[in-house]
Amino acid sequence: MAFSEFRRLDEKSLADYIKSVPSLSSKLFGNGSLDDELNIKEVGDGNLNFVYIVLSSRGGSAVIKQALPYIRSIGESWPITKERAYFESTALKEHRRWSPNHAPEVYHFDRTMSLIGMRYLEPPHIVLRKGLIAGVEYPLLAEHISDYMAKTLFHTSLLYHSTLEHKRAVAEFCGNAELCRHTQQVVFSDPYKVSQYNHWTSPYLDQDAEAIRNDNALKLEVAELKSKFSERAQALIHADLHTGSVMVTQESTQVIDHEFAFYGPMGFDIGAFLGNLILAYFSQEGHANDQNDRKKYKEWILRTIEDTWNFFHKKFIALWDEHKDGSGEAYLSAIYNNAELRHLTQQKFIQELFHDTLGFGAAKMIRRIVGVAHVEDFESISDASKRAYCERQALGLAKVLLKERRKFQAISQVVSAIQQVQ
Amino acid sequence: MAFSEFRRLDEKSLADYIKSVPSLSSKLFGNGSLDDELNIKEVGDGNLNFVYIVLSSRGGSAVIKQALPYIRSIGESWPITKERAYFESTALKEHRRWSPNHAPEVYHFDRTMSLIGMRYLEPPHIVLRKGLIAGVEYPLLAEHISDYMAKTLFHTSLLYHSTLEHKRAVAEFCGNAELCRHTQQVVFSDPYKVSQYNHWTSPYLDQDAEAIRNDNALKLEVAELKSKFSERAQALIHADLHTGSVMVTQESTQVIDHEFAFYGPMGFDIGAFLGNLILAYFSQEGHANDQNDRKKYKEWILRTIEDTWNFFHKKFIALWDEHKDGSGEAYLSAIYNNAELRHLTQQKFIQELFHDTLGFGAAKMIRRIVGVAHVEDFESISDASKRAYCERQALGLAKVLLKERRKFQAISQVVSAIQQVQ
Repeated sequence: MAFSEFRRLDEKSLADYIKSVPSLSSKLFGNGSLDDELNIKEVGDGNLNFVYIVLSSRGGSAVIKQALPYIRSIGESWPITKERAYFESTALKEHRRWSPNHAPEVYHFDRTMSLIGMRYLEPPHIVLRKGLIAGVEYPLLAEHISDYMAKTLFHTSLLYHSTLEHKRAVAEFCGNAELCRHTQQVVFSDPYKVSQYNHWTSPYLDQDAEAIRNDNALKLEVAELKSKFSERAQALIHADLHTGSVMVTQESTQVIDHEFAFYGPMGFDIGAFLGNLILAYFSQEGHANDQNDRKKYKEWILRTIEDTWNFFHKKFIALWDEHKDGSGEAYLSAIYNNAELRHLTQQKFIQELFHDTLGFGAAKMIRRIVGVAHVEDFESISDASKRAYCERQALGLAKVLLKERRKFQAISQVVSAIQQVQ
Repeated sequence: MAFSEFRRLDEKSLADYIKSVPSLSSKLFGNGSLDDELNIKEVGDGNLNFVYIVLSSRGGSAVIKQALPYIRSIGESWPITKERAYFESTALKEHRRWSPNHAPEVYHFDRTMSLIGMRYLEPPHIVLRKGLIAGVEYPLLAEHISDYMAKTLFHTSLLYHSTLEHKRAVAEFCGNAELCRHTQQVVFSDPYKVSQYNHWTSPYLDQDAEAIRNDNALKLEVAELKSKFSERAQALIHADLHTGSVMVTQESTQVIDHEFAFYGPMGFDIGAFLGNLILAYFSQEGHANDQNDRKKYKEWILRTIEDTWNFFHKKFIALWDEHKDGSGEAYLSAIYNNAELRHLTQQKFIQELFHDTLGFGAAKMIRRIVGVAHVEDFESISDASKRAYCERQALGLAKVLLKERRKFQAISQVVSAIQQVQ
């Protein structure tokens, strides 16, 4: 059986495929017979790909992810290149290089088949978003995700890269342009215009959606964020780092789904994560019941928002200090040669990054309420009027964060603003 | 005679080369005999390349430019890729596509030989910098150069490009990374640290040079400009648009020497041009004599600075308005759909570009006074104390422009600041 050209696999053909690929068959069968039973289950619940969990009777396991040339949740009417699998595999390996504890191992990549074989994140790993809906606290989440973001963003920026290696890497990821264009459309464009793909909790939010389309001040700021997203090659970002791209247990935090990765602004990753935590926060009232009013859980989410930024800030600056005499060409030590100046440059850098984070985070919140792809945090609230109430709170805060982000000087002020939403 | 691998040409071998290349020999010999005499003269006076003017007895002409793998003005101790000729030829053709009246025709490009054949800009064309030193007014200069900048920068930005074509072009010019790194070093790094290549009018400016190396506020701002230069792929910029890269007559303005071109911030080009006009302004006292006090000429330079920016602004916005429903993906017409909002976005865009222009222009001024490569405007002032006086005035203004650029709202305020320098 040959796999010399692309074909969509199913449970049956995937078993044959695995047997033909040593790096996968050795993971699943060890030294045993290839005739052992494989248990293969399709579990893709994202918007884009087919994802299979493969277990062997000998205890081996793997996840196989195959990209198809269209968006799964929309269908063949919205084509999108399957070459994204190449960029996913490349970015995942690069991010794992810098944060090996928070990105799964890649066993195998097949460009022809747009197929990645990687570690199966075994139970009790679940998608973070589902944990947030269930009201589960993850005491190490802020520590872990800030570690992942600080290390991946620092080491793929000019704070660590030489100019030559940076330009080489930027050029390669320019190849993922179709996925960038997709993000531009669904995050920075569609929510601000009439689009066949937009939807919202109607009729409750009809006026809110229209108000967004008519908000000149908001659209002015969105243009600036879009231009930063499109033009600024600051670091290799995940570019889709919402709470559905993170698998968690009480002890483990693993980032997956790197197919949108490219060299873009760091704040887009941090903002995506924090923005989705804020969405989770505002969805809690929809999940509260007589047994659990979710008040304590909301406090935990706020603490996690604050900790994530503060830990990130601390870790990022620690990396900068550690490598201040290193190969990075952004701030040469012969120029930034005194403690006061280094402190000033770091402060200026972090302040801009903080404002980027708030702007991008807010844009990601807005698009999840009035754009094409919504979040389960809200969608799982069956009472539409209650859902709309939660969404409107999130939307109101997002507009403030986006338009007035430069007024915020610390994450604690953002948390206060969240708490003050009525 | 074969030219299948790179070799440095001289007058003799160049004649053989030309005869072997139809696109060049037809320009020089027409349909006539290849035995006609060629008059070949090496005229390269820039820092980098060998440049030959080739004239045939039949009236044909061409310029041949060959890149060598090191910086000509420094020698083999400072290697720099000869692949720059590919980027020069590619960028020149692209800029000529958008501004055919202000960039010379390319007849021939040979990647193996790092050799470009292009139009000979016949007398009375001279390098603009030499005209400025001689005190010659060019009444069409502001009109022409603003046309060149508006058209080349607009049409290679996301105001005109789709995302996919932009990323493709950005990726290609990432290949010119060595030249970008060179600019980073000589413009944004060396002047702010001790470097073997730096020099200045010593001992007069010793303290001024040291003050620059110790100016934390200045170095903080330079870091921001450097990061924009290194990370922001806004448009295909010339990236070396000083007054030595422009050939002029009373009727003609031609931009040459595109080897530094890459996708970078627009303000770097506009700033380079205006910054070098400001250097020319401050050098005038060194060229004044009893016959000509240069006072009227200084007024012409100031008018040209003001006109260049204002004409650029007007032409750029006119292009934007003309293409507002076009293929550019930065500002979709369905979103930026009312006159007030379009005006706001344009105003915001131009304001940021203006501040970038002042920052980059000032950085280019500083590096020409205390960095490795100086300008003939000052170097031709033989009295060192007078030269230092002129240079110190320029340096003082440059520091203000760089550090306080955001306080300037209009080019007329910049002109006032220039006039107020004592």
